[in-house]
Amino acid sequence: MTQLPAPGSTERTRVRRLPEKAVTDRAALHQVLDAGLVAHLAVVDDGQPYVVPVGYARDGDRVIFHGSTGSRLFRALAAGAPTCFTVTLLDGLVLARSAFESSMHYRGAMVLGSCSLLEGAEADDALRLISDHLLPGRWDDIRPPSRKELAATLVLALPLDEASVKISAGPPDDDPDDLDRPVWAGVVPIREVFGEPVPDERGAAHDVPGYIAGWAR
Amino acid sequence: MTQLPAPGSTERTRVRRLPEKAVTDRAALHQVLDAGLVAHLAVVDDGQPYVVPVGYARDGDRVIFHGSTGSRLFRALAAGAPTCFTVTLLDGLVLARSAFESSMHYRGAMVLGSCSLLEGAEADDALRLISDHLLPGRWDDIRPPSRKELAATLVLALPLDEASVKISAGPPDDDPDDLDRPVWAGVVPIREVFGEPVPDERGAAHDVPGYIAGWAR
Repeated sequence: MTQLPAPGSTERTRVRRLPEKAVTDRAALHQVLDAGLVAHLAVVDDGQPYVVPVGYARDGDRVIFHGSTGSRLFRALAAGAPTCFTVTLLDGLVLARSAFESSMHYRGAMVLGSCSLLEGAEADDALRLISDHLLPGRWDDIRPPSRKELAATLVLALPLDEASVKISAGPPDDDPDDLDRPVWAGVVPIREVFGEPVPDERGAAHDVPGYIAGWAR
Repeated sequence: MTQLPAPGSTERTRVRRLPEKAVTDRAALHQVLDAGLVAHLAVVDDGQPYVVPVGYARDGDRVIFHGSTGSRLFRALAAGAPTCFTVTLLDGLVLARSAFESSMHYRGAMVLGSCSLLEGAEADDALRLISDHLLPGRWDDIRPPSRKELAATLVLALPLDEASVKISAGPPDDDPDDLDRPVWAGVVPIREVFGEPVPDERGAAHDVPGYIAGWAR
């Protein structure tokens, strides 16, 4: 809940609302990005913004993700269109004693900038890193991308040069005047859990790989 | 996994990639919106898109949400800036036999348009509806917004006139050639669960309200 200076903090990413929730610390930014699976990515086309979900990984001081060469929006990103990459991890519902202070716990990261297109070995490495983040341990079990599949894939990197992180945690922020209200107040935690793996009925039966057990979050 | 005609489907919201995952049916759109808690909302400022998370509710054929009058981005939305409102519910990890077909199960809704600002009784009603969606049963227990709090709040509505919905489900979409690969394939389900309520230690102790038990998702 403290605001710290960070190399990637700029006027555009400074958290204007609720600045006590801004934690512009690089380690916190990395932690939020490493905990997420899906980001929401914006592209503007003819003045109209579009927001699409994308699986991603962090690779040092950048995030990497991929899309289809058939996607107009991904082609615009590959051409350097300005983007915003936002990750939101919902951690809980905050039940305050007033409507105004009722809110949510979350960890959020926002990155502004333009993507660069990765090619050749750099793209190959990035695809593996994305798989390693989303499906740790899986890569060595699966068929790597064919030349044709690679040709249909745009692999993009967005640097973390201009980024912010915001963490909302702690008890409800009720006004002192509201504390006497005779009602339970607190936080209902939310977390994402993995269920029992459901096998594909095509192909022969195989044991569930051990690495999946480690994915419980 | 079928594409249906729907009144809110336009050229801009037609799902171009993986059209077999587009379900442009109004009931499916409502179901996805009703199942989500947080949307990702885009605003463009000086060519730069920004994506921010927002709690919301569906109210008939529109979505409603609120922000602060102190937020430049929400003020732009209130002034009618074009926006994109995207809800993504992550349902699982798809472990295919190839890297290319490895993916995620999700339900996604995208709404394009411009917001209108709600005022007076309409704003009051919308704030209650948002609370009823995010924290069902809570409203009657908490202090309603004061005049000062209302004056600091922008309540916005976005019509579902131009919207699409996309549902990714089912087994991995592996090429027939990959089915012989000697590795487990299938889906690891993901779901959001609520944990044990954590009481605020300020104020007197009160019983956890019964309505919270019904929130398990």
